[in-house]
Amino acid sequence: MSTNRLEAFSDGVLAVAITLLVLNIKVPDPANTAHLGTALLSQWPIYVAYVTSFATIGIIWINHHAMIGRLREVDHVILFWNLLLLLSVGVLPFATSLVAAYLKLGNGQHLAAAIYSGAFLVMALMFSALNRQILLVKPNLLAVELPEERRREIFNRAVIGIVPYVIALALAPVSAYASLAICALVAVFYATPRASSS
Amino acid sequence: MSTNRLEAFSDGVLAVAITLLVLNIKVPDPANTAHLGTALLSQWPIYVAYVTSFATIGIIWINHHAMIGRLREVDHVILFWNLLLLLSVGVLPFATSLVAAYLKLGNGQHLAAAIYSGAFLVMALMFSALNRQILLVKPNLLAVELPEERRREIFNRAVIGIVPYVIALALAPVSAYASLAICALVAVFYATPRASSS
Amino acid sequence: MSTNRLEAFSDGVLAVAITLLVLNIKVPDPANTAHLGTALLSQWPIYVAYVTSFATIGIIWINHHAMIGRLREVDHVILFWNLLLLLSVGVLPFATSLVAAYLKLGNGQHLAAAIYSGAFLVMALMFSALNRQILLVKPNLLAVELPEERRREIFNRAVIGIVPYVIALALAPVSAYASLAICALVAVFYATPRASSS
Amino acid sequence: MSTNRLEAFSDGVLAVAITLLVLNIKVPDPANTAHLGTALLSQWPIYVAYVTSFATIGIIWINHHAMIGRLREVDHVILFWNLLLLLSVGVLPFATSLVAAYLKLGNGQHLAAAIYSGAFLVMALMFSALNRQILLVKPNLLAVELPEERRREIFNRAVIGIVPYVIALALAPVSAYASLAICALVAVFYATPRASSS
Repeated sequence: MSTNRLEAFSDGVLAVAITLLVLNIKVPDPANTAHLGTALLSQWPIYVAYVTSFATIGIIWINHHAMIGRLREVDHVILFWNLLLLLSVGVLPFATSLVAAYLKLGNGQHLAAAIYSGAFLVMALMFSALNRQILLVKPNLLAVELPEERRREIFNRAVIGIVPYVIALALAPVSAYASLAICALVAVFYATPRASSS
Repeated sequence: MSTNRLEAFSDGVLAVAITLLVLNIKVPDPANTAHLGTALLSQWPIYVAYVTSFATIGIIWINHHAMIGRLREVDHVILFWNLLLLLSVGVLPFATSLVAAYLKLGNGQHLAAAIYSGAFLVMALMFSALNRQILLVKPNLLAVELPEERRREIFNRAVIGIVPYVIALALAPVSAYASLAICALVAVFYATPRASSS
Repeated sequence: MSTNRLEAFSDGVLAVAITLLVLNIKVPDPANTAHLGTALLSQWPIYVAYVTSFATIGIIWINHHAMIGRLREVDHVILFWNLLLLLSVGVLPFATSLVAAYLKLGNGQHLAAAIYSGAFLVMALMFSALNRQILLVKPNLLAVELPEERRREIFNRAVIGIVPYVIALALAPVSAYASLAICALVAVFYATPRASSS
Repeated sequence: MSTNRLEAFSDGVLAVAITLLVLNIKVPDPANTAHLGTALLSQWPIYVAYVTSFATIGIIWINHHAMIGRLREVDHVILFWNLLLLLSVGVLPFATSLVAAYLKLGNGQHLAAAIYSGAFLVMALMFSALNRQILLVKPNLLAVELPEERRREIFNRAVIGIVPYVIALALAPVSAYASLAICALVAVFYATPRASSS
């Protein structure tokens, strides 16, 4: 299969997932809302989770193109890992909604934060698995041949992206807020262009 | 009509349908949830149905491209069968939600499993009908001419995909769990790359 | 602007609208459902409305490509009419849901059927307006020059598509069922390939 | 990264966002609706907000293509501002739903109108920031070199689009209706083709 079609379908799933996130931001029910401003402010966790998930999917989209752009064509193993990556992105609207609903509640906030950061961790793992397949397992599908050191370098850089999500998951039982904050900071850090690329 | 446009539209529908599935995974209402972990675990049928439907649509997408990729151009009969195929994919989010809601209930579990496996069966039938039109009825639209035995061989392989769904549908009145398990195993089996292609 | 981009965006909107229709098919609430089969059968209007709207959007997609495919490039007037056409398609999920909810109710069934057939009528009118702009008002954007009789012929064929929706709208105050039946028959008639094209 | 991919993903997000708007138009609950016509008319703010948001996203789409079409390739800074633009479009379905729910209520109508016009203002600001980056900060990515006066002229025209939203936001505390009316008029004004382009 050509890389064009893989990209078109993946772009579609990522574009739908990133846009569906907004359905998690609920309009406060007018019948039960004495003061709209207070009601909107009190649901601040959904705004943080929304921006975090939006930026993270955006970053995945950018990196996905860089990764697939290295390929001449794709085989079934790549399709398989790509489908698992899309599956892990596909559940993000649920995980986002879950952490937003439970972040401020004593009952469930730790589990919700663990599921949210865990979803990002799984996504980063799938991304690394896909990168490993492309760069190390079967590099003969690359459009331009790369020396092994260079391939290992690109792969290692992708693997580093896993670390903050491991920390966020480990922190979830201690502090749900700290766990979410790490996910948010990672999104902001990677989304913001660095001096070298501006 | 060119095949490009048929693929772009079909990819769009498949990408939206596969991503909409997540809306079926509901966040347990905090007001009625004493323990979040228990509440999330108790809705396990939706996770099984979600992954099954996601993988099945992913497989349909891969096979759809292989099928349309054989064509030079498309005519109205192909458009018609393709629209029916997309219609059968389009109802999967509903069938997924239905089987998830009723799988654990004595009342309705058999019918829900029958509708779920039946939806997959209809999808497989539409896929075979489209394949039959392309490979056997009007092979002069193929981009590369294929001998008849080869065309029959490809078609027969697609038709075999119908069999497990017939079994799953037949099992639904006996055991809803067995019916869903077959649909799930088919998805996992076809999605996993085999030795020959890795 | 190139026609490619107009088509890509229009395809996106049509693909999302056609797939969103499924959200209107609700799973009967297990808590209030004594018999699932009866509950599913009793909501038959949504299945008729779903298939009708799905097929109609599918037909619009096919015709939209035929229409835009005649163009070399697009100008602001074409973009304007195309946006109005997409707007009329965009409200179909709502009109579909409305007619499904009210078709069996003495109170509201006539208005719901009028709005449903009226939405199709507006869509057909926008489609004709776009066709008129392309074929008659500013034919110099056509990729291949066509004699005026041929352009009028294509335009007139598109305009005929308006007639059944005028009848369906006129029938809505008399019989909501007859109005919906006409919309359904039009969809089936245009979606089914005719002898000449098979 | 090539501009093609940026456009495909942006088109996807815009197409999904524009189509998701329809989910905000609710079917009146038959159980609580004595007269469907009255019920539908009483929710007129959602129709105004729907058409306004639909037309505004449509205009953003047209202008986005004109802007990106000037580029030869995109860098990380452009991707960053584009992601912020898509984020501001992504929240429009929520802002649309909010202003529709609160426009007629003494409690909250001013805040809802401020958030609605504020969302459009942020979107216009992101659009100008993206234009500034492309035209003034790093014009060496342009496909065709443009003299500085011409680049400033295009940029200034984009910046003028901010003004009406500043006025709409400033009017929100005085009159929610006037604020929404300005947003609606801007959408109609920009969507309608002018004599010069017809």
